[in-house]
Amino acid sequence: MVVARRAAGNYNETSTMIELTPIGTIHSPFTDLKGMPVQPTAAEGVRGTVEVFEEYLDGLADLDGFSHIMLLYHFHQSRGFELRVVPFLDTTPRGLFATRAPRRPNPVGVSIVQLDKIEETTLFIQNIDVLDGTPLIDIKPYVPEFDKPENTRTGWLEQAGKSVRDKKSDERFKT
Amino acid sequence: MVVARRAAGNYNETSTMIELTPIGTIHSPFTDLKGMPVQPTAAEGVRGTVEVFEEYLDGLADLDGFSHIMLLYHFHQSRGFELRVVPFLDTTPRGLFATRAPRRPNPVGVSIVQLDKIEETTLFIQNIDVLDGTPLIDIKPYVPEFDKPENTRTGWLEQAGKSVRDKKSDERFKT
Repeated sequence: MVVARRAAGNYNETSTMIELTPIGTIHSPFTDLKGMPVQPTAAEGVRGTVEVFEEYLDGLADLDGFSHIMLLYHFHQSRGFELRVVPFLDTTPRGLFATRAPRRPNPVGVSIVQLDKIEETTLFIQNIDVLDGTPLIDIKPYVPEFDKPENTRTGWLEQAGKSVRDKKSDERFKT
Repeated sequence: MVVARRAAGNYNETSTMIELTPIGTIHSPFTDLKGMPVQPTAAEGVRGTVEVFEEYLDGLADLDGFSHIMLLYHFHQSRGFELRVVPFLDTTPRGLFATRAPRRPNPVGVSIVQLDKIEETTLFIQNIDVLDGTPLIDIKPYVPEFDKPENTRTGWLEQAGKSVRDKKSDERFKT
C-alpha cells in the first residue's frame, strides 16, 4: 500500500527558504579535499557506497535496473562563496555558475555515477568524486533521453584543455 | 576583486538540516501541472527564461560559452511524498528513487536545458519542463566529459515504452 508521508523538504512561504534533510550518506576513499578527483571522469573506477537511511528502503525498488544514477548531495565542507573563481582546469577567473566549484550560494552537488549493485540500503557505485561522509540529498535515475543533449559546446573548458582526467584538486576550496 | 560572501546555504551541524535560498526564478509557459511535458525531451523547443537575482550577476560570466546548462530548482508545488509511485510512463508502482517524480523527500529537480543567450540577469533557454515561477537553486554548466556516461541501461523505462516525447503530465502529482 502506498502511504503519503510528511515531506522532509519543507517550503516556508514567508522566508522562501527551502529546508532539506539528508536521506543517507555517501562513502568514498576521499577523506581530504586535497587530492580528490575533480569530477567523475577523473574518478573512473573509484569505488564507493551510498548508505540510504532505513526509512527510505522502499524507495530503492526498481533502481537496480539502471546502470547509472544521479546523486544530489550537500557540499558539507564548503563555506561561503565567491562569484568569480579560478577553476581547477584554468588559470583565469570565471563566473561561478560557469564552473562546478563546490563553494556556491546553495552548495548542492550533482554527480552521475555507475551503479553496480544494491544490497538492502547499500548502493555500490563507481566513478565517485565526493568526500567520504557527504550527506545525500536525492537519488534519481540517469535517463539518456532526458539527460543527454546533442551538439554541446563547453565554453571556457574547450580552451582550458582536455586534461580533466588527470587533474586532482588542490586546497583552494578548503575552508 | 574577489570577495568572499556569506553562504546562502547554511549547514546546521546539530539538526543536519540544509537550508537553501532561491537565487532566481524560472519562467515557462506552464502555469498548471496538468498538460506539462514530463521531461525536457518532451519539452523540445519550449522557450522559457531564467531570471537570476541581481546580486548574482557576476557569477553568470563565461556561462554564455556553454550550449547547455543544468538547472537545479525547487519543486515548489510538491507536498509530501510516497516511496512507491506509478510514473507517468508506466502503469506499475516503482520505487520513488527509480523515478523523476516531483514529490520526493527533498523536492529538488534537475533539468538540462539549452542556453540560447544571456542578457544581463536573464537567461533565454529552450526545452524547459518546469512550472512558471519555479524557484531556482543553482546553475551549473553541462559538461559531457562529466555528465555523459556510456553504455547506459534504464531499467523499467525500457519496458515501459519509448513514448516519453508524447507524454504530458496529468494531475497525479498535484497537491
